[in-house]
Amino acid sequence: MTLSLTPLHGIPLIRQGDDLADILVGSLQTTRLTLEDNDILVITSKIVSKAEGRLVDLATVTPSERARELARQAEKDPRLVELLLQESNEILRVRPGVIIVEHRLGFVCANAGIDHSNVAPLHLPQDSPNLRGEEGVLLLPRDPDQSSRKIREKIEAQTGKRIGVMIIDSHGRAWRIGTVGMCIGLSGIPAVMDERGWRDLFGYELKITIVGVADELAAAASLVMGQAAEGTPAVHVRGFPYPLREGSFKELLRPKEQDMFR
Amino acid sequence: MTLSLTPLHGIPLIRQGDDLADILVGSLQTTRLTLEDNDILVITSKIVSKAEGRLVDLATVTPSERARELARQAEKDPRLVELLLQESNEILRVRPGVIIVEHRLGFVCANAGIDHSNVAPLHLPQDSPNLRGEEGVLLLPRDPDQSSRKIREKIEAQTGKRIGVMIIDSHGRAWRIGTVGMCIGLSGIPAVMDERGWRDLFGYELKITIVGVADELAAAASLVMGQAAEGTPAVHVRGFPYPLREGSFKELLRPKEQDMFR
Repeated sequence: MTLSLTPLHGIPLIRQGDDLADILVGSLQTTRLTLEDNDILVITSKIVSKAEGRLVDLATVTPSERARELARQAEKDPRLVELLLQESNEILRVRPGVIIVEHRLGFVCANAGIDHSNVAPLHLPQDSPNLRGEEGVLLLPRDPDQSSRKIREKIEAQTGKRIGVMIIDSHGRAWRIGTVGMCIGLSGIPAVMDERGWRDLFGYELKITIVGVADELAAAASLVMGQAAEGTPAVHVRGFPYPLREGSFKELLRPKEQDMFR
Repeated sequence: MTLSLTPLHGIPLIRQGDDLADILVGSLQTTRLTLEDNDILVITSKIVSKAEGRLVDLATVTPSERARELARQAEKDPRLVELLLQESNEILRVRPGVIIVEHRLGFVCANAGIDHSNVAPLHLPQDSPNLRGEEGVLLLPRDPDQSSRKIREKIEAQTGKRIGVMIIDSHGRAWRIGTVGMCIGLSGIPAVMDERGWRDLFGYELKITIVGVADELAAAASLVMGQAAEGTPAVHVRGFPYPLREGSFKELLRPKEQDMFR
């Protein structure tokens, strides 16, 4: 079966309080797609954060002494680093320009996933040319699995179709250049497929056991979304090759004690 | 534009000397797909290795003292570890069941990508039931970029279409559970897109600069291939959202001196 990923058109700039389920249903119509059972909608963390009011005005942040010290090491704004500390369980590495953390959600990422780009400036009109909006930064959603579930349930109630919803973010990797889309929240789809005990073509057990299918789908959706002005924050997926079930992004988190690279 | 990924049917068990370009063209016909300009074919490292004769009979391998010591630590077959050492630039971590290396091709992976599964046993007829083929192991292709280029050029000569070819393997990640498909060789497509200097919706420069588009596509293709008996080793891709150009998987390798997690 073909896996097809289609960017959704007609999604407006998202503001706090917007109903993403309604907006997604509208953009499916604009894109002339009709939801079917087992379809999946993949959306960026950014629009979820905006809808949930996770935009923070840096002018309201008072950095702690620890944040100021870390900011010196990382050559970053101490107020940004203060937010990063609040959003993190643990600091893993510090270099000029980058702080690698274990996010409070449990995954390892750069700069606690705090985002400057495509954030509407707080103190300037939206339609000004050449805006400088550096005072507004966006934190990751508070509980992305729950956000996914709410959107899924509302769309399922509206359409009568059984679907999956996934929230993704762009992450760097330890050993490889380039960001890739990764799953940071989902509902209605498996995050991993455990293939222990499956037999290969010659009848003996596969050694590779667990496949990160949600991260594979997140990467695919990220490719379709693009990263810059031309990008779209939502993708419709048809043909996901595994049965849908409830899941959690936490299936993808390697327990710290099994992590050889901290 | 929709990105669509379709598994190719009718690919036989691959043997040393098989012409993968011819086999892929045949399987496109079987799958009723006609190549168009900018299409991409993604194939597993496994079929490339088999075609190139990278199958090694463990009975022919004499482990060194270093291999025997490492095998004790990792609880692995010393002959397998000998091959792993030959295929690696550097050993990064050793744990029971796993050795993390920098492969001679330059990327970090587990067990030097040496594969036991779906390898035809060397000393038993192919059609025996319940075969035990544990003496045969498969090394990664010698030069996957070059393998990709040869396949691409032959298919382009046969079809008159400008395409891309990518070879993928399933890799684990430092901090996350589950393998995902990653690019280990390509020809005719970019491995990364450098988006430095692109401006976002609000007119200032994006901070996230380089996207690992080949790894995103590799993950997408891996999702479609599946991992076990039902899997297929080749996927046809239409709708890759970036212009095709010549590339190399080496664009994805983080220089060792920039790697914070070794």
